[in-house]
Amino acid sequence: MKVAIVGATGYGGLELVRMLKNHPHVSIHSIHASSQFGEPLTNTYPHMEKFMNMQLEPVNVEKLAEEVDLVFTATPSGVARELAPQFIEKGVKVIDLSGDFRIKDQEAYRQWYGLEPSDKRLLEEAVYGLSEWLDVEHLNDKKLIANPGCFPTGVLLGLIPLVKENIVDEQSIIVDAKTGVSGAGKGLSPAVHFSETNENFKIYKVNRHQHTPEIEQGLRMFNEHVEAITFSTHLAPMTRGIMATIYANAKVAVNQKQLIALFKEAYEGDFFVRVRDEGDFPATKEVYGSNFCDIGVAYDDRTGRITVVTVIDNLVKGASGQAVQNMNKWLGFDEKAGIDFMPVYP
Amino acid sequence: MKVAIVGATGYGGLELVRMLKNHPHVSIHSIHASSQFGEPLTNTYPHMEKFMNMQLEPVNVEKLAEEVDLVFTATPSGVARELAPQFIEKGVKVIDLSGDFRIKDQEAYRQWYGLEPSDKRLLEEAVYGLSEWLDVEHLNDKKLIANPGCFPTGVLLGLIPLVKENIVDEQSIIVDAKTGVSGAGKGLSPAVHFSETNENFKIYKVNRHQHTPEIEQGLRMFNEHVEAITFSTHLAPMTRGIMATIYANAKVAVNQKQLIALFKEAYEGDFFVRVRDEGDFPATKEVYGSNFCDIGVAYDDRTGRITVVTVIDNLVKGASGQAVQNMNKWLGFDEKAGIDFMPVYP
Amino acid sequence: MKVAIVGATGYGGLELVRMLKNHPHVSIHSIHASSQFGEPLTNTYPHMEKFMNMQLEPVNVEKLAEEVDLVFTATPSGVARELAPQFIEKGVKVIDLSGDFRIKDQEAYRQWYGLEPSDKRLLEEAVYGLSEWLDVEHLNDKKLIANPGCFPTGVLLGLIPLVKENIVDEQSIIVDAKTGVSGAGKGLSPAVHFSETNENFKIYKVNRHQHTPEIEQGLRMFNEHVEAITFSTHLAPMTRGIMATIYANAKVAVNQKQLIALFKEAYEGDFFVRVRDEGDFPATKEVYGSNFCDIGVAYDDRTGRITVVTVIDNLVKGASGQAVQNMNKWLGFDEKAGIDFMPVYP
Amino acid sequence: MKVAIVGATGYGGLELVRMLKNHPHVSIHSIHASSQFGEPLTNTYPHMEKFMNMQLEPVNVEKLAEEVDLVFTATPSGVARELAPQFIEKGVKVIDLSGDFRIKDQEAYRQWYGLEPSDKRLLEEAVYGLSEWLDVEHLNDKKLIANPGCFPTGVLLGLIPLVKENIVDEQSIIVDAKTGVSGAGKGLSPAVHFSETNENFKIYKVNRHQHTPEIEQGLRMFNEHVEAITFSTHLAPMTRGIMATIYANAKVAVNQKQLIALFKEAYEGDFFVRVRDEGDFPATKEVYGSNFCDIGVAYDDRTGRITVVTVIDNLVKGASGQAVQNMNKWLGFDEKAGIDFMPVYP
Repeated sequence: MKVAIVGATGYGGLELVRMLKNHPHVSIHSIHASSQFGEPLTNTYPHMEKFMNMQLEPVNVEKLAEEVDLVFTATPSGVARELAPQFIEKGVKVIDLSGDFRIKDQEAYRQWYGLEPSDKRLLEEAVYGLSEWLDVEHLNDKKLIANPGCFPTGVLLGLIPLVKENIVDEQSIIVDAKTGVSGAGKGLSPAVHFSETNENFKIYKVNRHQHTPEIEQGLRMFNEHVEAITFSTHLAPMTRGIMATIYANAKVAVNQKQLIALFKEAYEGDFFVRVRDEGDFPATKEVYGSNFCDIGVAYDDRTGRITVVTVIDNLVKGASGQAVQNMNKWLGFDEKAGIDFMPVYP
Repeated sequence: MKVAIVGATGYGGLELVRMLKNHPHVSIHSIHASSQFGEPLTNTYPHMEKFMNMQLEPVNVEKLAEEVDLVFTATPSGVARELAPQFIEKGVKVIDLSGDFRIKDQEAYRQWYGLEPSDKRLLEEAVYGLSEWLDVEHLNDKKLIANPGCFPTGVLLGLIPLVKENIVDEQSIIVDAKTGVSGAGKGLSPAVHFSETNENFKIYKVNRHQHTPEIEQGLRMFNEHVEAITFSTHLAPMTRGIMATIYANAKVAVNQKQLIALFKEAYEGDFFVRVRDEGDFPATKEVYGSNFCDIGVAYDDRTGRITVVTVIDNLVKGASGQAVQNMNKWLGFDEKAGIDFMPVYP
Repeated sequence: MKVAIVGATGYGGLELVRMLKNHPHVSIHSIHASSQFGEPLTNTYPHMEKFMNMQLEPVNVEKLAEEVDLVFTATPSGVARELAPQFIEKGVKVIDLSGDFRIKDQEAYRQWYGLEPSDKRLLEEAVYGLSEWLDVEHLNDKKLIANPGCFPTGVLLGLIPLVKENIVDEQSIIVDAKTGVSGAGKGLSPAVHFSETNENFKIYKVNRHQHTPEIEQGLRMFNEHVEAITFSTHLAPMTRGIMATIYANAKVAVNQKQLIALFKEAYEGDFFVRVRDEGDFPATKEVYGSNFCDIGVAYDDRTGRITVVTVIDNLVKGASGQAVQNMNKWLGFDEKAGIDFMPVYP
Repeated sequence: MKVAIVGATGYGGLELVRMLKNHPHVSIHSIHASSQFGEPLTNTYPHMEKFMNMQLEPVNVEKLAEEVDLVFTATPSGVARELAPQFIEKGVKVIDLSGDFRIKDQEAYRQWYGLEPSDKRLLEEAVYGLSEWLDVEHLNDKKLIANPGCFPTGVLLGLIPLVKENIVDEQSIIVDAKTGVSGAGKGLSPAVHFSETNENFKIYKVNRHQHTPEIEQGLRMFNEHVEAITFSTHLAPMTRGIMATIYANAKVAVNQKQLIALFKEAYEGDFFVRVRDEGDFPATKEVYGSNFCDIGVAYDDRTGRITVVTVIDNLVKGASGQAVQNMNKWLGFDEKAGIDFMPVYP
């Protein structure tokens, strides 16, 4: 199978290269960007030398449609909205890593993103690719996967088992999330300036992060009673990694052992989710460079509150790794193909 | 006035040296540790060269009692419990930076610290030195200030205005705190190993952090209805700084402007608390090396939840800076004396 | 005395604010930038709240000349070249923190900076303000101090005692320098992007750094036989600090003790230089936030080579701290006034 | 083929697990340490969950000798000296990652390591496994590979092409090396304490680093005239990565282009060495997590001096990756087997 990567110079794109270059069944047909045409990708990323000798090309939909089976769009918001329909029309599968097709509710998208939403029909057809909870049967006749956002991936994997089983008070959910700086991408801004970020811990977009409606929508797929959540995002002085510390009040009698058993059962067949034993909680470095989501769970008798801790590598499970995992499921490969890296530690 | 520092080789002790060497009215009489007797402190801390030429001495209570007005104990848990009573008996004021005299409830101390508590009578007499909320009138006939813990300082400054005015649901309080590694002190452990900590984000002591009862006790001084809180502590890959992200449900009708006005009023005369304007939230680096606590406040109409964000430098406002601020109030100096440093940024 | 800061929004400018706000004899009259007119500096730097309530102003030479005694220009290359002469003409002293007046040789400036040099007469009059080696007598009738570059400060303080005493082979000098990222300033570029810089160690401008001719010129002020040096600059994943590791072959018989004695003698009366004892070498954090230059010296019998290690805080001794030190000498104050901070450690 | 890892809990050991778990022809038979017997390695390293389910065992030479083909000893200095001979006697191949068998000269070992050297006969038989310069023909009848130290790997790959071709003055070699903190291993010491290391740049073991004689010995294998070198080691605030900045005077007429051509030719068939084009220099992150050594070369007409810059990941090419590369050559596999990871960037 042959795939093209649109947006190859961003962090999502370059991680796609790393994953796909390691893939046993898929080859990269071409890499695309909005500039630097004709330049080898190794000009920008010399670390790829000896692995990637392609040059960046503009996107030619006609030509690509004849030559590739699937296109990854790892582009800024607003680009895939225009591009994906063209590929889909010509029968090419699309996995979009941007936010363009994640939010079904056009009004919510407009409000939280401040942009015009994608076409309504395509939004309805798009499959939300939270890989562990993806209905593969349902996938085959589809043309478009909306790859989840980095924060929603970690948060939903940590909350779905609880909301699905009606264990938590649906209006008590608070998510305190922390991300490394690479989540902001390769673009320049004061927010990613080393001297402003190093040895600093920041909160940003308080009550306004655009991943909020995506999380709420994802939870409501499993429990329609979920209400507005509190979702806070923080910037930690590190490059990779997201930790979501999730709080919710138990509305039924539970204990810690039961909760851990619930999570272990929920993810029993899922290679890329690792549920920790009682008293053990994951750290972001323990999934560095890998496609894992590690989960720890606690219950506090004093407060009746459940704490779930999830960690992912925002560029892998939170972006490109999950995209490849989705592709694997879609194309009928082993879900681990190309992404069975062990985390790089320390 | 002359003071002695017991525990001068720890991070709390060395910051006391930095503050007191800058103090216009107080001089350091002597520095004490449990080892390295006769060694100049500059052997361990060459950065102090030209400021500090004293040698470390063992503690001689008899001698010190004749020569100093006040002793700072910046010692591990369990040391001040033995030492402070001896100084107090001889009329020497003590400011203890450890946890020994913070928790009035001996049983709670036993449970959360796993250690034997201090003498009951002394515990009752000890003044909890949260400097902004300290009753200075009441202080004069006292002999002992228990300097607050690093986390409780930031959390209480962020919550007291709310609980005092009965604005939040007393059983809804969740504190998600993040600290730099220096909070763990100078001692060696895998938790402070660079390779295990750098580019890593960890949660620790989930539902078991010993500062929990201190925060609850502090809140109940202002509102006896406060119930068990959820308090989570995380380790961020940086040296200094604590951010507390505090969540609570409003139980009365409020809006963001009112909340910010409430905080500004509460801290109007307090030089070391800076309340941000609407939409502005503090980052830890903005108080680096200084005695400030910066506070941002948000209210979310969607959830009816209040978010308070506070930042401090854990070694200054969270330890030695606040100790000097307390000393200043106790001895009748300007509270800023010796600690009016601007934060070091970037 | 009243001073104005031109370029107050850059890192050099904001450190000038920190130093001067702490100064006993000098007050900041006004702060200037090339944009953001009318905005309080605290909009950009909330850490200054309660210390600095001025707004940014455009530069009005006429008006300033009547109101201030001295102007600091902490501006990008090329600005002070135009501005300084105007102030000087009106009798206002100028301390320039940029490279505009450091290089006496116009051709060398053109070649290394790729810019047009300053006016020849003014270049000749400008005093190179390497504070420890500054001829204060000579200073009084001057109008302009060219504050040294960050790297040259650390390198010259480490080499002058050797070249002055004819101890090293003048063609054997190699300087391997490492700097924190704040040296690149507040401007945005891929070189200061956190994700590209964190957990990364880079070399840059190999054999082409514009501080090379400044170092050579500085050395030749003390020994005209100094030849072209090798000067390498590296970017370390930290915000502040420069270490220069300096290598030179001894051309006379020496030993380690003698060398250390030589350095101790050379800097005997200099508060801001601290020469370490034998076997002890400084680390950058040991001068963090302070105006010190710490120096360690080694001699290797195996190779006949001398190694000198110097560390400074690039924003303080390497920029604003030294500028204030120069001002102090120029205006007849204690050289420590306003800058007698202890380093912030850890 | 089956291999055992002795010292599996150290950083070298755990990276061996990562490489070998990815190996197509070799399987890990057992993992060994000096304590924690019976404990799964995932207790210490939860990031290995789902990859490694073995428990730590004591070393039983008799038993292992029957069951494995090769043993990796990733142990502290002094352990392999005792253990390797026992395995070798029983016909088991050994690759030692410690310094025990690297230095042929027993007296030099004694002097630089301060320890008793290994057996003379075994030292003579041991093959120094600098993989790119390894004589594979010669290897087959050998029993022991001494895997090079982390610094010597980067330094020798950068210097051998020059000294071999008699291009540099043999007494002019200066190596200024910078390493991440993981080079100091997993053990606890103030040198690896986060708060002492973060935002800090240090020099250590000035003129006394034990890798000095190893580098000199390695160079003399290619040019017997090489004299004592200056070798300085610095600790950078990052986890992984070594940069060696190497200086030497050209003793013949050369230019930059010729030098780069020389390096490109020298490493033409070597997958794991990537020589950069003119004006391009590598950064440590560009080899992060991979087995590459990237090399940049410059020549300065002003000084007649050559600068070579090499970067490696100290735990991969500087330890376990090179050990697997050596194993691959020894056992007749493709040298890339199991270690053809792309660097993890950013």
